[in-house]
Amino acid sequence: METKEPTTEKAILVSTDDLLKHWQGHRSLTRRTIEAFPEDKLFSYSIGGMRPFAEMVYEFLGMAVPGVSGIATGEWQKWADAKEVHTKKELLDLWDKATEGINKIWPQISPARFEEEDVAFGQWPGTCLSFIGYFVDNEIHHRGQAYVYLRSLGIEPPPFWERE
Amino acid sequence: METKEPTTEKAILVSTDDLLKHWQGHRSLTRRTIEAFPEDKLFSYSIGGMRPFAEMVYEFLGMAVPGVSGIATGEWQKWADAKEVHTKKELLDLWDKATEGINKIWPQISPARFEEEDVAFGQWPGTCLSFIGYFVDNEIHHRGQAYVYLRSLGIEPPPFWERE
Repeated sequence: METKEPTTEKAILVSTDDLLKHWQGHRSLTRRTIEAFPEDKLFSYSIGGMRPFAEMVYEFLGMAVPGVSGIATGEWQKWADAKEVHTKKELLDLWDKATEGINKIWPQISPARFEEEDVAFGQWPGTCLSFIGYFVDNEIHHRGQAYVYLRSLGIEPPPFWERE
Repeated sequence: METKEPTTEKAILVSTDDLLKHWQGHRSLTRRTIEAFPEDKLFSYSIGGMRPFAEMVYEFLGMAVPGVSGIATGEWQKWADAKEVHTKKELLDLWDKATEGINKIWPQISPARFEEEDVAFGQWPGTCLSFIGYFVDNEIHHRGQAYVYLRSLGIEPPPFWERE
């Protein structure tokens, strides 16, 4: 594994705590988006043949703890969505367990590790920082889609800019 | 304006070039998303009372060059969407002009400036890095919504993971 070395003259310092806070802030908004769905619509509602929101959430969960574990240890599981559940409560419980899991593993990742090149889930090359960037971007992208599902159901989604 | 000072022991080095590349990669995908819309639908199609995609793009454009200018100079315009246009070509031209504008202004921003606290558009406090983060996140969020518009029109959106 190679380490990229941006010179400090051309580099911004991003604290590892702020990066975790940014991600967990987005995850907190995603949790409120899950909560906003009526139970049945969470697992069934679709527009244009897209996945119901619960299935997108399985994807987020498949990246979250398995992703930070891979970054922390350098050992990657095979890529997989989280296993299906059948109720909103079960999905929120999985979400909260992942929140704790990320917080627990995060401090084991050294700042230098984020700058290292690796291959996420044995499939996607990049720096470990780029993996976290992808997990967050992917979550924002699909959560935005869930906002359309909610609006089309006549439900006001949670404010996008609130991240606590 | 205060400067945050994360200690290098707990900080990740993010090169300013990589940050620009990440944003422009997302902007390149947004450009392809604009292109994927039929001309009339770009300015009119809506689900659940949400804005047509062109109106979301005015918001992205309102943040892009005015935002990096504010970061570069410390002087902020009043927040506003970009002015309306009437054809896809005009919208893509605005987009390409903004792409050049961002690239031109970017090298004038020192790495330390990204860590400074300021108030974006005189309204939103945070570090300059957090402003760029918000511009990108907001673009991903609304572009994800445009993907639902496209799918519901029977149009395949551009692949999310392609950023060139």
